Amino acid sequence: MEKLYIIKIGGNVIDNTAKLKLFLSNFASLQGKKILIHGGGKVATQLADKLGLEVQMHNGRRITDQAMLEVVQMVYAGLINKNIVAQLQAYQCNAIGLTGADLNVISANKRPVKEVDYGWVGDVKHVNQKALSDLLANYYMPVIAPLTHDGAGNMLNTNADTIASETAIAMSAVYETHLLYCFEKKGVLTDVNDENSVIPLLNEENYATYLSQNVIFAGMIPKLDNAFAALRRGVKQVVILEADSLNNLENKDFIGTRIIV
Amino acid sequence: MEKLYIIKIGGNVIDNTAKLKLFLSNFASLQGKKILIHGGGKVATQLADKLGLEVQMHNGRRITDQAMLEVVQMVYAGLINKNIVAQLQAYQCNAIGLTGADLNVISANKRPVKEVDYGWVGDVKHVNQKALSDLLANYYMPVIAPLTHDGAGNMLNTNADTIASETAIAMSAVYETHLLYCFEKKGVLTDVNDENSVIPLLNEENYATYLSQNVIFAGMIPKLDNAFAALRRGVKQVVILEADSLNNLENKDFIGTRIIV
Repeated sequence: MEKLYIIKIGGNVIDNTAKLKLFLSNFASLQGKKILIHGGGKVATQLADKLGLEVQMHNGRRITDQAMLEVVQMVYAGLINKNIVAQLQAYQCNAIGLTGADLNVISANKRPVKEVDYGWVGDVKHVNQKALSDLLANYYMPVIAPLTHDGAGNMLNTNADTIASETAIAMSAVYETHLLYCFEKKGVLTDVNDENSVIPLLNEENYATYLSQNVIFAGMIPKLDNAFAALRRGVKQVVILEADSLNNLENKDFIGTRIIV
Repeated sequence: MEKLYIIKIGGNVIDNTAKLKLFLSNFASLQGKKILIHGGGKVATQLADKLGLEVQMHNGRRITDQAMLEVVQMVYAGLINKNIVAQLQAYQCNAIGLTGADLNVISANKRPVKEVDYGWVGDVKHVNQKALSDLLANYYMPVIAPLTHDGAGNMLNTNADTIASETAIAMSAVYETHLLYCFEKKGVLTDVNDENSVIPLLNEENYATYLSQNVIFAGMIPKLDNAFAALRRGVKQVVILEADSLNNLENKDFIGTRIIV
């Protein structure tokens, strides 16, 4: 099977013009087929503040009422997505910006109201592997904003990490899929204050050992649990790396954490 | 050649939820291949007001500084475009939202500064007929926001009527292209106060006569001049019609103005 990179960049890269520019240049240079998934960054919160909207959170998750949905739709799909696409075009990378609604790429269910009403938040129902494969076959590089749709005419706000892993799982049916999470650290660290403590390779066995020794930062655990879940569902490899290291991905001296089963 | 509809809807439809819903339902039902181009409506101005930005106009054209570019990018590409795409998907129309940057569909030159600096405004340089044809070949229906890019990483604000006519001209190389302007009147009127005074057919000859008799409303003249220019450059037919009449387009009792050469 042909190799496909699914690459997720987080808010800290998006919020930094110079870092984003370098990252996009590296993304454009990366050989082969690739899909970029971007997070939202702080811009949505800043716009909400300017508009006098109160950002409501529950357990670290944003509650998305109608006004907040409009804000994230504007910022993610309008501002960030198109700035990325225009910059990639300047690097001769034939990018196409998408939300889940475009070509019905990612449909979702509005999260049911239980103790908390999260509002216009979507849990991924289906990733349209066929539509994404058709675009990739033309060497079009999808750039996906963290928004989905319910199939009944409504946009929904969806976590970018989840979009990345669900997309990687779906694409594994036809591609050898490598899922890359680019963030601000050099990889998964055994000592959060030591950038040289990167774990180069994680598998279920040593992951269990690290967990029992409490050496993995608690904030990384949901990400890693998701990574292993993606691997069990067909993804070939998950890599957690610093955004600046993308250009070094296929080199021997690459620093980052590769996760395999 | 196969028939292709290029349909432009203006702000008055976009600003009216019920009118837009009806229009999109009619658009989805229209048989054959089609491209939708939407204007901006009042939402961009409303958002600019809320953010305390001053809307600067020159001869009826918006001056687009950096802050205003971000506003139109958010409103056109994020809010309006994705709301339209999600609604079309609900009507089983496989829409894909685009700006000029996506797949390099429409590149533009930043307008040179002469007496006035229009800021981030783009004059269309090239419409990528090949990319749009590839999408249409897959029965993907492009929905284009009035934004272009300069190829150097910058988004540009571009008039939606111009995008519609330039797209129609470019697509005429491979399709029998019908360019439809949907607006709030039943067509070109000889009496602006009488909706029954629609001119059913305009050609260069009777247009010259109407002009000499001063019976065409001055505001329509640039639109009509553009229509004739598009026809001379390969477009098969231009139709000016009320948005609600789209479902009646191919019927004998259709009311609207057809323009041919």
